[in-house]
Amino acid sequence: MRENELLSHIYRRSADLSGSFAQVVVGPGDDCAVVRTPTESLLKVDQVIEGRHFVRGTPIDLIARKAIARPVSDVAAMAGRPLAALASASIPESFAQADALFDACAAWARRFGCPLVGGDISATSAPVLSLSISVLGTPHARRGAVLRSSARPGDSLWVTGELGGSFGPDGLGRHLTFEPRVEEASWLADTLGPSLAAMLDVSDGLGMDAGRLASASGVGIRIERDAVPVAPGANGWAAALGDGEDYELLFCVRGVDRLPETTPGGTRLTRIGTVVEGSGCRLVWNGGEADVAQVGFEHGRRP
Amino acid sequence: MRENELLSHIYRRSADLSGSFAQVVVGPGDDCAVVRTPTESLLKVDQVIEGRHFVRGTPIDLIARKAIARPVSDVAAMAGRPLAALASASIPESFAQADALFDACAAWARRFGCPLVGGDISATSAPVLSLSISVLGTPHARRGAVLRSSARPGDSLWVTGELGGSFGPDGLGRHLTFEPRVEEASWLADTLGPSLAAMLDVSDGLGMDAGRLASASGVGIRIERDAVPVAPGANGWAAALGDGEDYELLFCVRGVDRLPETTPGGTRLTRIGTVVEGSGCRLVWNGGEADVAQVGFEHGRRP
Repeated sequence: MRENELLSHIYRRSADLSGSFAQVVVGPGDDCAVVRTPTESLLKVDQVIEGRHFVRGTPIDLIARKAIARPVSDVAAMAGRPLAALASASIPESFAQADALFDACAAWARRFGCPLVGGDISATSAPVLSLSISVLGTPHARRGAVLRSSARPGDSLWVTGELGGSFGPDGLGRHLTFEPRVEEASWLADTLGPSLAAMLDVSDGLGMDAGRLASASGVGIRIERDAVPVAPGANGWAAALGDGEDYELLFCVRGVDRLPETTPGGTRLTRIGTVVEGSGCRLVWNGGEADVAQVGFEHGRRP
Repeated sequence: MRENELLSHIYRRSADLSGSFAQVVVGPGDDCAVVRTPTESLLKVDQVIEGRHFVRGTPIDLIARKAIARPVSDVAAMAGRPLAALASASIPESFAQADALFDACAAWARRFGCPLVGGDISATSAPVLSLSISVLGTPHARRGAVLRSSARPGDSLWVTGELGGSFGPDGLGRHLTFEPRVEEASWLADTLGPSLAAMLDVSDGLGMDAGRLASASGVGIRIERDAVPVAPGANGWAAALGDGEDYELLFCVRGVDRLPETTPGGTRLTRIGTVVEGSGCRLVWNGGEADVAQVGFEHGRRP
């Protein structure tokens, strides 16, 4: 792989970006891209690394998809929409598919609404492929950015979709193919306005992420164990709580008792708990409760 | 290193970002950062990788400095100013200084005017440290973004500072300590307005980068060999032409014959050539000329 050839290839394929995406003023190929931006913009970076976020042998297209979908999911978790993306890759010298990988990233970035406007590639002696994607987004026009710090005691706690078992025994599974909840988040902000109180996406496990929401808001959270929607094939509530990589929305609702069973697009909405005074995240069931704010995984700790 | 501990550390140190930088609405710690943006924004990603952009043993502070300074230099090359930065790092599991590395990135990002508003860290089995930095910037308010595609025959060709020898024999040198030419670019755009015709930063060697400017603009470039300002210690004009990693501005000027010898800040300005009809980049001297559009280095080709 020669960097110049690869970059030329990318620029050629990006020639029509400004035509397809009104926000792109100058696409890849100059020192910087130029993108039309709202008064306030969202910014997020996330990376996927072989052996940690995907197993060796995962199809290129799914690696690219996950790399783009992860930061897009964070934009969704603010109730925003993605506008543009940047990709950087560190690629083993022996890796022959750099071209296909960038094509796939570009295709998924378009599909998720945030065309790739820049990138950087380095071939290295490292044996491990890593991709870092930055996404620029626009907050919800009326609701504004939905922060994780705005939960208050009395809010109800909800989740989209179903949790657990996302990382299959073969390393494949939903963690590679999830749909970032951009439409769902946008619909929630449209529908609930300021009653949509705090939100994040569940990436490291419901227990740990609910604990983070509680900590950011200075509140406690109680999750009803038997209300947690468990994904088909997942190993019960423990998997739903701790597996992570679900990329579902966890959100708080204030002053509204009921929501439809699904979003207009058919994504399930489930009330799973309550925001209370105090701190931490406790799982409660008939006859017991437990602290679950550390249940999940964090990079650097997984064996 | 545990990711959560490191992120908490970063968030604590970033608590005053909004106070110090008016553009930061929400700093690190939520799903996304929120940054105040102009109507059009600049976007750039660049990475530094051990063994390629710095040698093993380079002080942490200089690695961080170079990682931030590279994309800032690209923002300068559009005559823009940096607003905010995102960092992602892939760190060998044995690396004990992740904390110091992120502190240094945060410090240099502030120093260069683009506070770090988000980051992602992964410990991996890879033996090589890599850092990817994305920068959001604002174009020059009146001149707008200065593209590399806007050179025309008859423009004069200029360069800031001095070229060559940036990568010292010990792997240290100016490539680690250069000052991105943000002030110089801003002054050029203020002073020259639309007469500042096309610009880029010289990262891969004057020959190759001038060739890129020529190609993007559909013109030819002639560089006068004996006019090229050679940095002290560099091995003559060949080094100035091919070494790369200078991060000086190469720019075209239209309809203005003279510039001061230096910018108000003391950075040297040198006229080194002319934009002509045709294509490619030729070095000319008393009695000869040569095609130098391939002189420089690109990643993936360096031995």
